[in-house]
Amino acid sequence: LQPAEEAVPGGATALVAAGVLDGVQAVFGLHADPANPVGTIGVSAGPITSAADLLDIRLHGPGGHTGRPHQTADLVHIASRVVVDLPMDLGLLCDPRDGLNVTFGSVHAGVAPNVIPTEARLLGSLRASGRGAWEAAPEHLPRLLAAIVEPRGATWELDHQRGAPPVVNDPWAVSHVVRAANAVVGSDSVRPTVQSAGGEDFSWYGDIAPLGYLRLGVHRPGADRVDIHAGSFDLDESAIALGARVLAGSALEALVELGARTN
Amino acid sequence: LQPAEEAVPGGATALVAAGVLDGVQAVFGLHADPANPVGTIGVSAGPITSAADLLDIRLHGPGGHTGRPHQTADLVHIASRVVVDLPMDLGLLCDPRDGLNVTFGSVHAGVAPNVIPTEARLLGSLRASGRGAWEAAPEHLPRLLAAIVEPRGATWELDHQRGAPPVVNDPWAVSHVVRAANAVVGSDSVRPTVQSAGGEDFSWYGDIAPLGYLRLGVHRPGADRVDIHAGSFDLDESAIALGARVLAGSALEALVELGARTN
Repeated sequence: LQPAEEAVPGGATALVAAGVLDGVQAVFGLHADPANPVGTIGVSAGPITSAADLLDIRLHGPGGHTGRPHQTADLVHIASRVVVDLPMDLGLLCDPRDGLNVTFGSVHAGVAPNVIPTEARLLGSLRASGRGAWEAAPEHLPRLLAAIVEPRGATWELDHQRGAPPVVNDPWAVSHVVRAANAVVGSDSVRPTVQSAGGEDFSWYGDIAPLGYLRLGVHRPGADRVDIHAGSFDLDESAIALGARVLAGSALEALVELGARTN
Repeated sequence: LQPAEEAVPGGATALVAAGVLDGVQAVFGLHADPANPVGTIGVSAGPITSAADLLDIRLHGPGGHTGRPHQTADLVHIASRVVVDLPMDLGLLCDPRDGLNVTFGSVHAGVAPNVIPTEARLLGSLRASGRGAWEAAPEHLPRLLAAIVEPRGATWELDHQRGAPPVVNDPWAVSHVVRAANAVVGSDSVRPTVQSAGGEDFSWYGDIAPLGYLRLGVHRPGADRVDIHAGSFDLDESAIALGARVLAGSALEALVELGARTN
């Protein structure tokens, strides 16, 4: 369990700080997966969720008249430059395999067609499927932002709210999940899962011990497919027992091997 | 006189359509100039105001999640692309000496950092110091906008409100203004004037007859300098008589020469 999986930075860090995971040698977890039918288990080694941070950028300029952009800072242009250039600039400093994705959901500046505004605000998300790009971003972002904004005569503020890094499944831990899942649902129902673009603070447990995180099929065949965060989401409750059995089985498999190593 | 100088397209076109200028052989006009002291006259041949249109661009897309920009149209990026690329694209199709200036005063799209919006709106002005760029813009804008927006999966609407073309002073008409002004204020107080970035629908009269448009100094020495469109604007009223005398003198000078040509 981890409280507040999608808050920033997430409840998992509080549990780690409280020492709950001290001495733990493997961590297993699951997430409901409405894209797959009940009775299936999805699991893969490597990253299976993404890092997701929030960006809140405010720009300030002296304002002016659109007839005389050269006498001021053209703040709508500068905000647009940030949207166009910042993702590319940052992307070129990161390993392409880390799947960096900086996408803005909101831009607001100005009110009139012929008045250059004094403020602009951009809201966006920074995601990465690999941990390297996510770790490098806070170092690069302020420098790149300054390089876009300041030569054009404006100033900037960046509020970078860090989310969680990707959940990276450990091959050793995953091997125990696969064995347990084979026993519970049969090997034909144990499938590789793809990396999600969503964030998941379970990832922080990976700093303590190897992770085995699985996707539990919860879709009742024939029912409507409803998004997991929608108010009308429902699941086939037989999935609960299957999930509990796979988690317990994974832990037992791991304990057996860890015990054999010690003896 | 022309009613509604700064409305779009301006009152001058109504007067031309009403036939008020039929048979007119020269047109003289003036504009108060608070940047120069009363007793001075500014006049130059060639363009002395700018064309100024309004642009209102609406973009529409399917919307989506910032974690999955590839499954939709990234509308904040597309709006920013319009701000960055449209002025440059249009500028490269116009004579650089026409001084094209497309500057946006407002951009609005989206509310959340992690939701790709379905709508964006841009407001801006299109100005040109030369008439060629202003005349070519309506032909080029829709094609260029389509080329930026449509390949990225969004749609667009353009509301292009045409203003007036630049006032282009005729050298022959200006020579009469200069002679009349020399007689009224003395040749030391008759000065060249620079082209304004503002719009002025007096320009339409240039389609009927040669224009002689002057800048009448109205600033009372020692008084605060207040913008001409501010509510607290005041002028040195002695400028009114000076302006009337220069306009009447210009017309008389022109009539003398036109009469000499006819006789």
